[in-house]
Amino acid sequence: MNEVMQVIRQHRSIRKFKNIPLIDEQIEAIVDVAQMAPTSAHMQPFSIIGITDQELRKKIAVHSENPSIEECGYFFIFCADLYRIMLAASPEQQEKMGHNLSFSYFYQTAVLSTALALQNANVTAESMGLGAVIIGGINEALPALDEWLGLPDFVIPLVGLAVGIPDELPEQKPRLPRSAVFFENRYDLDLKEKAKDMTGKSEYYGARTNNKQRASWSGKFIAMLDKDLPLGGYTEYVKSKGFDLK
Amino acid sequence: MNEVMQVIRQHRSIRKFKNIPLIDEQIEAIVDVAQMAPTSAHMQPFSIIGITDQELRKKIAVHSENPSIEECGYFFIFCADLYRIMLAASPEQQEKMGHNLSFSYFYQTAVLSTALALQNANVTAESMGLGAVIIGGINEALPALDEWLGLPDFVIPLVGLAVGIPDELPEQKPRLPRSAVFFENRYDLDLKEKAKDMTGKSEYYGARTNNKQRASWSGKFIAMLDKDLPLGGYTEYVKSKGFDLK
Repeated sequence: MNEVMQVIRQHRSIRKFKNIPLIDEQIEAIVDVAQMAPTSAHMQPFSIIGITDQELRKKIAVHSENPSIEECGYFFIFCADLYRIMLAASPEQQEKMGHNLSFSYFYQTAVLSTALALQNANVTAESMGLGAVIIGGINEALPALDEWLGLPDFVIPLVGLAVGIPDELPEQKPRLPRSAVFFENRYDLDLKEKAKDMTGKSEYYGARTNNKQRASWSGKFIAMLDKDLPLGGYTEYVKSKGFDLK
Repeated sequence: MNEVMQVIRQHRSIRKFKNIPLIDEQIEAIVDVAQMAPTSAHMQPFSIIGITDQELRKKIAVHSENPSIEECGYFFIFCADLYRIMLAASPEQQEKMGHNLSFSYFYQTAVLSTALALQNANVTAESMGLGAVIIGGINEALPALDEWLGLPDFVIPLVGLAVGIPDELPEQKPRLPRSAVFFENRYDLDLKEKAKDMTGKSEYYGARTNNKQRASWSGKFIAMLDKDLPLGGYTEYVKSKGFDLK
């Protein structure tokens, strides 16, 4: 197993950090390697915002209910960005382009490409001995976050990446068995048997010595999703940024 | 610069492959490392389909208008998958869960998480000396692809990953300057100056000795998007798979 595979296989999300800021060389390395991700048509449809203003970090942490945002060594926000490709267009061209970009296809493309850059950043941080966690909870700070960061239409803050020197070494979460995720030529509709370690009893989370959870993997999602979720506001937000999802 | 950063920084998409299939150990390494990507709430909302049936590969290649699909050493399809988390639920629970999963928030989460796994796979292939290219064009094979692969609701084939022994060494595409992508605390609305190398004349693509393109980076997107695009069908497809994007 080469060094790249070793680093990625050792992944665990780190949520507790030593109170030591990243140095500029680390920040630049993370951003530069993130930029090397491939993107559809070389669109590079993402922006990265580094939050160094401690008051701003605190506000985002409070709204996202996530203290790692305030306590980490450096906090990045990864945004899907289809604004930049319109920079050189005339107002008439921008109107037409904006109409096309509002299709869900471009929204999906921008999200996917941003995530490729994000994972490059994540793996690069880990390769330097740093820890990191991707934070989806920043959506709780929407739409205020747009104003705080000055984000124009077609720029959507997707997730945060908190990076720092680890102050914990959590156990790795076991993955679904390969046979429940990887198929040859055809999807296996009868997955229950293959995934029973995860979907059945609570052996899975119960086997961990810390961060024990009594629910099974499946039970957790049933508990999470078998109730009314007020998520319509997220779509309204995405639409308000120009992505009509039509 | 460590080995991980070196591998990722050497990235270029490879589209021409030697006629040599991947061996099982390579395929398993790519899938296993892909599975180590972090996912929101540990949902693991992706499936990977390896296409080994040569007739099927040919069909997908023709529909996607992409010969790499047929000629590579191994072809993966990465799918966003929110079907699996409903496996252990009762029919009543599944109905309620399906209603919630149809929000665009979960669609976005599944796309983003799938892309993290995809980039792990891409980087792992490159770390083993293989070449790879992510192929968005498989959407041209929709909705037939669903039937060919037997994909249920809430499973969306996002992109292909063609992997193999490289039979070309293309030049790297230059990235946007860091200052046009990475901001401190606040988005820079006046990007034109920072990005002028890319948005202005054709120095950028023109500097390449092969694969010359006369358009500037921005000019390419103006040409691509300043016309009528028939993309509404993609949204209809996503909705037909259960994601209402409401």
